Amino acid sequence: MANYRFFIRYDGTRYDGWQRQGNTDRTIQGKLEKILLRLFDRAVEVHASGRTDGGVHALGQVANFHSPEGMEPFKPQEIENYINTYLPEDICVFGMEFAPPRFHSRLNALGKTYCYRIYTGKTPPIFVRRYVWWLPEQLDEEAMRRAAALLSGTHDYASFCANPRMKKSTVRRVDRLSVERRDDLLTVQVHGDGFLHNMVRILTGTLVQVGRGQRAAAQMPEILLARDRALAGPAAPPQGLCLESVDYNPPFSVPKGADERSIWRNL
Amino acid sequence: MANYRFFIRYDGTRYDGWQRQGNTDRTIQGKLEKILLRLFDRAVEVHASGRTDGGVHALGQVANFHSPEGMEPFKPQEIENYINTYLPEDICVFGMEFAPPRFHSRLNALGKTYCYRIYTGKTPPIFVRRYVWWLPEQLDEEAMRRAAALLSGTHDYASFCANPRMKKSTVRRVDRLSVERRDDLLTVQVHGDGFLHNMVRILTGTLVQVGRGQRAAAQMPEILLARDRALAGPAAPPQGLCLESVDYNPPFSVPKGADERSIWRNL
Repeated sequence: MANYRFFIRYDGTRYDGWQRQGNTDRTIQGKLEKILLRLFDRAVEVHASGRTDGGVHALGQVANFHSPEGMEPFKPQEIENYINTYLPEDICVFGMEFAPPRFHSRLNALGKTYCYRIYTGKTPPIFVRRYVWWLPEQLDEEAMRRAAALLSGTHDYASFCANPRMKKSTVRRVDRLSVERRDDLLTVQVHGDGFLHNMVRILTGTLVQVGRGQRAAAQMPEILLARDRALAGPAAPPQGLCLESVDYNPPFSVPKGADERSIWRNL
Repeated sequence: MANYRFFIRYDGTRYDGWQRQGNTDRTIQGKLEKILLRLFDRAVEVHASGRTDGGVHALGQVANFHSPEGMEPFKPQEIENYINTYLPEDICVFGMEFAPPRFHSRLNALGKTYCYRIYTGKTPPIFVRRYVWWLPEQLDEEAMRRAAALLSGTHDYASFCANPRMKKSTVRRVDRLSVERRDDLLTVQVHGDGFLHNMVRILTGTLVQVGRGQRAAAQMPEILLARDRALAGPAAPPQGLCLESVDYNPPFSVPKGADERSIWRNL
């Protein structure tokens, strides 16, 4: 019974998110488990660092699974090649390796980085249309940055949680919430120890309201204090969101030659 | 009767190329003319700087059309907005303006720049899968550059023409044919006064054979001299090719905030 961990990159456009849903094959987890069932002839559960919503992408999602008991373990590279052979062209796995027996992608995750990309150019984006939210508007970035500073820290983020019946703690630590522009691309980057359902998209949607002047940056503390979803802005659409990376200790990193961001930057 | 000229950007994946084909709606020209027919209630022919093949992309294709005689001319911006409203999400027009009456996108084009993008990373590209040729191989770039130098200049490119019954001259001037690597992306950039059918893809396919060591760079002059399609390499697949820009005199340029390359570079 070997524990395998790996990175997954996916274009979430065609999927209902990470989490397997009954008989549908339109989830990332479902796709992977179906291939592993074929490989091992036994059901295997794949754990990711967290669920991503339908339409959300991942550059460096991390997952793990245990091979069935009593089986001669395959080499990690063999499994990686097998999975990639059967995955559709919008998902791939890489960096497959043996993990310590008790490693668990979700339970051991210490932090995550998400990017939300907003394109503010005047004409519609064509090549990256699936990976950005197109807002051909002037946004007040300075106000967005002031609001972002007020929204980061350790807070109860219940107002930014799409699940109204969340029973567990809604306190999270967001140690980075930045708004950066390069040309016509505005990127909201978030790093934190964990995120509530739709939290990054609701944070972004609220920041965009501030950028449009529909709301003052100074309102952020009262939105947090109210613990009321109705007070925050709408969730930004899923396609602008991407899970960039997940932190573990000890860290392990994306293998050289497998980081697709380097392609984007060089096009 | 006004002459309108504009830029078009398209993801060619879903299309059978630029040129209208009978009743099919799967061409860029067909899509545009159908929308203009609706606008003017009269058939209008749209001329591009040149045809692109099925699956080939354009960042800065240039086209023009004349509005029907006897009609009050619409403002360029009105037409641009109208067209973009009805275009699918993988095509957009921008920079619409009045052109001199005799301006013709193809006949007045002085030169064109194409890029062919090869991704040599070990894992499949996901987000840019439609825009690159994935070759997870070690290519000998120095040999490719030597071959490229021998293939550029003013030559009879009949060996690099997919049309075996080309009646017009097959002499062209290629004043730039470069092979550049940035990380795992190898870009073949070509500038010339005009290109034969599939010429850029056959040049690229031949350079890749050299990069693989299947052919020596020194063979290039004899391939050119033979004027025989069978001697050059296979055409590289269409999805790596993109028409980047077209030159005119006097020049006119892509409006600010409409250049999608800046998005790619900033992702």
